[in-house]
Amino acid sequence: MSEGLDPLSRIVVVLVAPSHPGNIGATARAMHTMGLARLVLVAPRRFPDPEADARATGATSVLEHARVVTTLDEALAGAALSIGLSARAREFAGRVLAMRDAAREAIATAPRGDVALVFGSEMSGLSNAELERCALVATIPANPTYASLNLAAAVQVAAYELRVVATGGHVWSAPKFAPATADEIAALHAHAERTLVAMRLLNPAMPKRLLPRLRRLFARAGLEKEEVNILRGILARIDQFIAKHRG
Amino acid sequence: MSEGLDPLSRIVVVLVAPSHPGNIGATARAMHTMGLARLVLVAPRRFPDPEADARATGATSVLEHARVVTTLDEALAGAALSIGLSARAREFAGRVLAMRDAAREAIATAPRGDVALVFGSEMSGLSNAELERCALVATIPANPTYASLNLAAAVQVAAYELRVVATGGHVWSAPKFAPATADEIAALHAHAERTLVAMRLLNPAMPKRLLPRLRRLFARAGLEKEEVNILRGILARIDQFIAKHRG
Repeated sequence: MSEGLDPLSRIVVVLVAPSHPGNIGATARAMHTMGLARLVLVAPRRFPDPEADARATGATSVLEHARVVTTLDEALAGAALSIGLSARAREFAGRVLAMRDAAREAIATAPRGDVALVFGSEMSGLSNAELERCALVATIPANPTYASLNLAAAVQVAAYELRVVATGGHVWSAPKFAPATADEIAALHAHAERTLVAMRLLNPAMPKRLLPRLRRLFARAGLEKEEVNILRGILARIDQFIAKHRG
Repeated sequence: MSEGLDPLSRIVVVLVAPSHPGNIGATARAMHTMGLARLVLVAPRRFPDPEADARATGATSVLEHARVVTTLDEALAGAALSIGLSARAREFAGRVLAMRDAAREAIATAPRGDVALVFGSEMSGLSNAELERCALVATIPANPTYASLNLAAAVQVAAYELRVVATGGHVWSAPKFAPATADEIAALHAHAERTLVAMRLLNPAMPKRLLPRLRRLFARAGLEKEEVNILRGILARIDQFIAKHRG
């Protein structure tokens, strides 16, 4: 049992017979951006390779820790769940899930053991025999007339879905500033009305739609304290001009 | 109004000052896999370029129809909604949404006009000035210590989310075979019990856990008609061996 362990540390990305070292490097980068660290390469054509390092950019640690094995069975040994990625319909596939649902199963299984995500070679994907070694098949929704995602791009989407499930998809948000209070906003409206009347944009006897539209705009924006101050500063400056003009 | 139009046909991917033609090609491929066709390049360093064509593989049509402009304003002219992608927190960003929520807004807006998804250059992403030209900011959840997705990988994730929202994320599924009926399954259980008793694996006076476990396994699998036939064929073959052995 490993309660409290980061579920993403249980995810193992398995590339079966990758042809291009550039794709191995790009896979490492895709994994690292989503917090995945464990890469297993089954009979890679060329690895290690400078092209893999170049495409990994800041994620060479994933390559340094990559495990190289000769068979898929070795790669899957001990995994609690193995998920094969496939773009094409296969007659003898067992359960086929969209990647989003497969990610939920993967993260739900992670507390019980390693979860392998298995990707086939660039040219032909996983063979039927390889796919049968997997407990379930995951597929990335794609253009039916051109479903050929680049290998590292498929890893990126899968890793992204895993991260969203594992972390709830939290993202940074713009810093929150103090919202304006109702009386500050009311004072702004009153000021705006006075200034607009002084500017002759508003006839106090016939206010028409101008003020309601401004109020609506401000309400929708959810004004902050500082924004009210900025707007009132602008109004005050207009007031000065009008006073001078009249003086 | 354009009811019934594919909402993905309203999505425009804008790359601002891309440095590497390979990334432009990989972006075209990522777009095409998700059914996006409209690419706008703002002041690309090298385009067209054989490296872009090579990385686009089967998606060169996206490159052939790409529009090249000199400013972001040109790229955004006429768009009903512009969404800037950013990995890093920005002080003056307006609304910041996770990519999944931004995709919902994009597809909801599509019936009213074009929706631009704006990606910055490989090295530095979108500048604050460029981000301010966008109505909202989308961010892809990522490893906070290494959020540096490759440009085309970011396009792949964004395009994938748009496709899932637009199409409901439908995927192919394994062909459905006729499920076994309850009486076929009951007959299988009865057959298995007889055979197991004959094999002396089961003492009819003390059935223990073997049969319940087998029943549970079959129930979980959701047996198909043909599978019941296969299993009964195996049982029948065992029955023959036992009869011979005794004979």
